[in-house]
Amino acid sequence: MSVARLIQKKRDGGTLDPQEIAPFFNAYARGDVAEYQMAAFLMAVYYRGMEPGELNALVEALLRSGITVDLSSVPGIKVDKHSTGGVGDKVSLVLAPLVASLGVPVPMMSGRGLGHSGGTVDKLEAIPGFRTDLTVAEYRAQLERVGCALISQTAEVAPLDRRLYALRDVTATVESIPLIASSIMSKKLAEGLDALVLDVKLGNGAFLPEEHRATELARTMIGIGRAHGKQVVALLTAMDRPLGCAVGNALEVVECLATLRGGGPSDLRELTLVQAAEMLVLGGVAADAAAAHAAAAAALADGRAAACFQRIIAAQGGDPAVVDDPGLLPQAPVERVLVAEHDGWVGDMDVRAIGFAAVALGAGRRTLDSSIDPAVGFHIPAKPGAAVTTGEPLARIHARTEAAAAEALVELERAIPVVAEPPGASLPLVVRRLTE
Amino acid sequence: MSVARLIQKKRDGGTLDPQEIAPFFNAYARGDVAEYQMAAFLMAVYYRGMEPGELNALVEALLRSGITVDLSSVPGIKVDKHSTGGVGDKVSLVLAPLVASLGVPVPMMSGRGLGHSGGTVDKLEAIPGFRTDLTVAEYRAQLERVGCALISQTAEVAPLDRRLYALRDVTATVESIPLIASSIMSKKLAEGLDALVLDVKLGNGAFLPEEHRATELARTMIGIGRAHGKQVVALLTAMDRPLGCAVGNALEVVECLATLRGGGPSDLRELTLVQAAEMLVLGGVAADAAAAHAAAAAALADGRAAACFQRIIAAQGGDPAVVDDPGLLPQAPVERVLVAEHDGWVGDMDVRAIGFAAVALGAGRRTLDSSIDPAVGFHIPAKPGAAVTTGEPLARIHARTEAAAAEALVELERAIPVVAEPPGASLPLVVRRLTE
Repeated sequence: MSVARLIQKKRDGGTLDPQEIAPFFNAYARGDVAEYQMAAFLMAVYYRGMEPGELNALVEALLRSGITVDLSSVPGIKVDKHSTGGVGDKVSLVLAPLVASLGVPVPMMSGRGLGHSGGTVDKLEAIPGFRTDLTVAEYRAQLERVGCALISQTAEVAPLDRRLYALRDVTATVESIPLIASSIMSKKLAEGLDALVLDVKLGNGAFLPEEHRATELARTMIGIGRAHGKQVVALLTAMDRPLGCAVGNALEVVECLATLRGGGPSDLRELTLVQAAEMLVLGGVAADAAAAHAAAAAALADGRAAACFQRIIAAQGGDPAVVDDPGLLPQAPVERVLVAEHDGWVGDMDVRAIGFAAVALGAGRRTLDSSIDPAVGFHIPAKPGAAVTTGEPLARIHARTEAAAAEALVELERAIPVVAEPPGASLPLVVRRLTE
Repeated sequence: MSVARLIQKKRDGGTLDPQEIAPFFNAYARGDVAEYQMAAFLMAVYYRGMEPGELNALVEALLRSGITVDLSSVPGIKVDKHSTGGVGDKVSLVLAPLVASLGVPVPMMSGRGLGHSGGTVDKLEAIPGFRTDLTVAEYRAQLERVGCALISQTAEVAPLDRRLYALRDVTATVESIPLIASSIMSKKLAEGLDALVLDVKLGNGAFLPEEHRATELARTMIGIGRAHGKQVVALLTAMDRPLGCAVGNALEVVECLATLRGGGPSDLRELTLVQAAEMLVLGGVAADAAAAHAAAAAALADGRAAACFQRIIAAQGGDPAVVDDPGLLPQAPVERVLVAEHDGWVGDMDVRAIGFAAVALGAGRRTLDSSIDPAVGFHIPAKPGAAVTTGEPLARIHARTEAAAAEALVELERAIPVVAEPPGASLPLVVRRLTE
């Protein structure tokens, strides 16, 4: 079939055979399908979606474009977690060492910040010396020795996904559920896991804010995982407010260290424990969610999780002393506080705007080649629906310059309104649990 | 606005400002918008359409990418005709000299065959020596002297349309009404006309077979013409059977010559007269359609139209003797006849298949660089609904080789069925007339 005919078939709502999809993407990988043809195809997929058979053929093509890591030398059921991203979502930094400390290997390849959302790799790199660019051999060896490795996606994994993502980014075809799902799952399936917990965010700080879209994404990813013989559990969780209080790389690490020592904000702690419980059950070391939850809470309380994080940091070239002395992390010179101008309630937050304000401070990348300032960001104790009195701090800004702080203050004032009537209820921390 | 944001706005059904459209297409013309971004945009337009303001900005950008011919030195109201194309649609070759012979200048730039449909330029080039690649200066001079020039679109007219069309062809974005309409109208507006008659085909041999789609295309083109201060009349006409009997370049010229001498098939003659009447009224030389129709019929009967075609052929380097001796046109060596295998009625024809069978014979291009055999084609006296008896000829095949003729016979047998019951009514020759 000609490429134009294949695009036309998708355009008109037809279902492509796996025997059509695979050669099409392979030809693209070889350079025999032009970027403009793939762009038109992706836009047609944006409108028409993909059937499960099409999707699995796409995932296969993405997987086969690079290496699949063989972790059979690592004993145990390997369980990873992936979040669709949001503002202040730092769970992985607590969760991975916590689960590994309880005997479930966690092979975690993560991404960098994207748009308004932060990325695990950027957060880890706020720890002085921490290397996320391990080779596959180093990654496997560390999993054997420490039970956990936290690395960035290597260029060897699903290189076709990288090319497609770059194309989607400049052709307005990012927000397509099958394309998002296949991109995420191909990278996860390549890293060597046996089971996966998905944290699919919803609310205005999520990439797909609406529950029905988030649900569709979760189900699509579960379907891909199942088709590849993996157990997958998805949690739909709240992103109508930042998770925890810290937003910004070093600030988030500080909050994670507090949580690893048994403290930390209650929402961050609870969401971490819920996800840990899922991973421990999938990993076969706990009989049920309640037992797993208790075991995880204990590992936070008695220092096992923190000690595991210390081993991971040391193994990846970072300074393990930060675990006991967060003051070793980079700190920004300028602080400004946003206070309530009048009595009232914290209203609905514009979480996406908070994320973009953090990017503007330097906590994320404005362009592909801009560098990150690990020290800057926000500490936002306010939560929607909380009663506040005049002068009460809503947010603390950590900035590189006075000008940047002043700009951020204006943004946060708009994004964190104080209102005269209590706002409607926020989303529950965990909205829904899906296994199919 | 970034290019990705602009694509996204169209993708999500937003309406772009003319101030957004124009810079976008200009940047594409300069190479500052990538082909893959334009491909994604065109696919979004395929699904979302374009508002009149967007469309006019696009037409402006297409027009401004090349020259607009100034025909102010040619006296009179210049009137052209454009057909959306079909099988056996040879009207232009009769119509243009007919209208010019009655004092209305006809500046006609035409295209070549496309897909299953023939093209005026290919038909004209079946006349030995006929040149369609006049320069703009030659074109203008001939209009002043002869009142009509029949040329191919020069590279100087709407070059951006040429690039966009090539991109649409390989990205399955051809069948978009605003893109078809802007492509046609930008080329027509560039050729220097004052008024235009559009022949929009419907039925299974048309590019847009359905009446509501053909109507939408007609109205869209009328809107563009109006926005540029031109009078436009559109006729929706039948393409559920070939027009006339001849399909194939030299064969169609022979049929046109018969029609120019006052004979020819009744459907070809009548459609030509209807369109001529519209053009004569638009051109200000007839008071109403009835008077114009009668004047046109007289110019066919008394040889004025044929004499004008002779002058055009001579002016463009062709052999004017063909008008009196069609035997000078190329003829194919092999003839085969398709006959009715049993008594019955001619059923609904697959006109598109007939067109493709002619292409396969060599009457059109299978690939961009294949050459045309002017002599080959069909003569199809059968019309849907006609009663036929066993052995009655349905079609005559004119081929270069026995093998090609045999292949065509199989195709025509399928495309021109003989059925036991009379089929439903065919479309009327002129289905609808639109002026807005």
